[in-house]
Amino acid sequence: MTLKLYHAPHSRSSRIISQLFEMDLMDAVDIIHVTIPRQDGSGGRDPNNPHPEGKVPLLVHDDITIWESGAIMQYLTDLFPDRGFGAAPGDAKRGLYLSWLYYYGDVMEPVIVHKYAELTHPALQTTFRGFEEMTERLANGLKDQPFLLGDSYTAADLLVHSPFAWFADFTPDVPVIKDWVARCTSRDAATKTMEFDADLMAAA
Amino acid sequence: MTLKLYHAPHSRSSRIISQLFEMDLMDAVDIIHVTIPRQDGSGGRDPNNPHPEGKVPLLVHDDITIWESGAIMQYLTDLFPDRGFGAAPGDAKRGLYLSWLYYYGDVMEPVIVHKYAELTHPALQTTFRGFEEMTERLANGLKDQPFLLGDSYTAADLLVHSPFAWFADFTPDVPVIKDWVARCTSRDAATKTMEFDADLMAAA
Ligand SMILES: N[C@@H](CCC(=O)N[C@@H](CS)C(=O)NCC(=O)O)C(=O)O
Ligand SMILES: N[C@@H](CCC(=O)N[C@@H](CS)C(=O)NCC(=O)O)C(=O)O
Repeated sequence: MTLKLYHAPHSRSSRIISQLFEMDLMDAVDIIHVTIPRQDGSGGRDPNNPHPEGKVPLLVHDDITIWESGAIMQYLTDLFPDRGFGAAPGDAKRGLYLSWLYYYGDVMEPVIVHKYAELTHPALQTTFRGFEEMTERLANGLKDQPFLLGDSYTAADLLVHSPFAWFADFTPDVPVIKDWVARCTSRDAATKTMEFDADLMAAA
Repeated sequence: MTLKLYHAPHSRSSRIISQLFEMDLMDAVDIIHVTIPRQDGSGGRDPNNPHPEGKVPLLVHDDITIWESGAIMQYLTDLFPDRGFGAAPGDAKRGLYLSWLYYYGDVMEPVIVHKYAELTHPALQTTFRGFEEMTERLANGLKDQPFLLGDSYTAADLLVHSPFAWFADFTPDVPVIKDWVARCTSRDAATKTMEFDADLMAAA
């Protein structure tokens, strides 16, 4: 079995690096450093990146290509269920696990981007709802437990908290959410990922 | 084991009804008819709907609540892998299956809603890309095969084609895509779902 991850430092694919540290899989995956266009005008699309839009992350398992962060994260926890970083099929938490992973991309990314871009429209509100509803969903999910699935940190927390790790200003001003974000960003794997990415940047 | 689906006719939850027909599970799931606010001003939020935003679909498996269409559809194919309507963990198509399910909510819904609402912004283009890139991804996925995973119709096709079934005008004008949408909308399960929903509307 070969696993290859196409990765650009300090990007959405850094979440997968964190996941690999959490799951002790850094030695099991070949990490291929690619460039992407950066906001400051540096970087650029990498001809070595097989993603059809030049994006990261992209995971290749033997000859199967997997795109979308949520799909990749779930794929990896399903492939290595004994690493305990998700909820496998049959686990009582499976439904909650899938719901949060899908909710992140279906609702949270659009809602956060719409807020950042200051876009409003009735169709956005109907389809995605807004920042307030998202805040309520998170606060509810965390009100009785330290992490989204209960007592353990999983790929659901890693994915769902990630926008607040990048844009601290976007963290809802609600204690249970702020405390949870602090728990997520203080993981050893988060530190290791920052060091890993800094080394890639320095070597580039 | 009890399974309950909260459903409003002619809505995003009709996709789950189609899935239940495809998987021969209509007798295994208790379908609870709820109202939602409709564009014409009829309907309204249903106090019997436990979804925190009053939306559909919502699936309840014993005491676990599963929300987001993609999560529900994947949950059901994982729960009944022998029905052959998805790709189970370990199947060579698993990565492709997850990628399409996540891509639908992560990219296609936002892109289609942005086009419908005529919203443009550099942040939308960077995060989601646009209708053209989506069209290219679909055309590529279908260029050598009748369905997204190959020869068989699966939950990936059911979810991904659904916006074009509702809004025919939004179907990209590309033969492989139009032919695929026609194959998807001509399924027996699509007809049965329309009849099922018409009966619910008539009885309401
Ligand atoms: N929905 C995708 C989004 C991927 C994405 O937008 N990645 C950014 C990195 S933060 C990228 O590759 N941008 C380069 C570009 O837009 O060309 C996912 O969650 O994986
Ligand atoms: N991302 C959700 C969207 C669900 C959704 O927006 N459902 C619509 C039905 S088409 C709804 O319940 N609308 C009622 C409302 O907005 O109050 C999913 O895919 O399940």
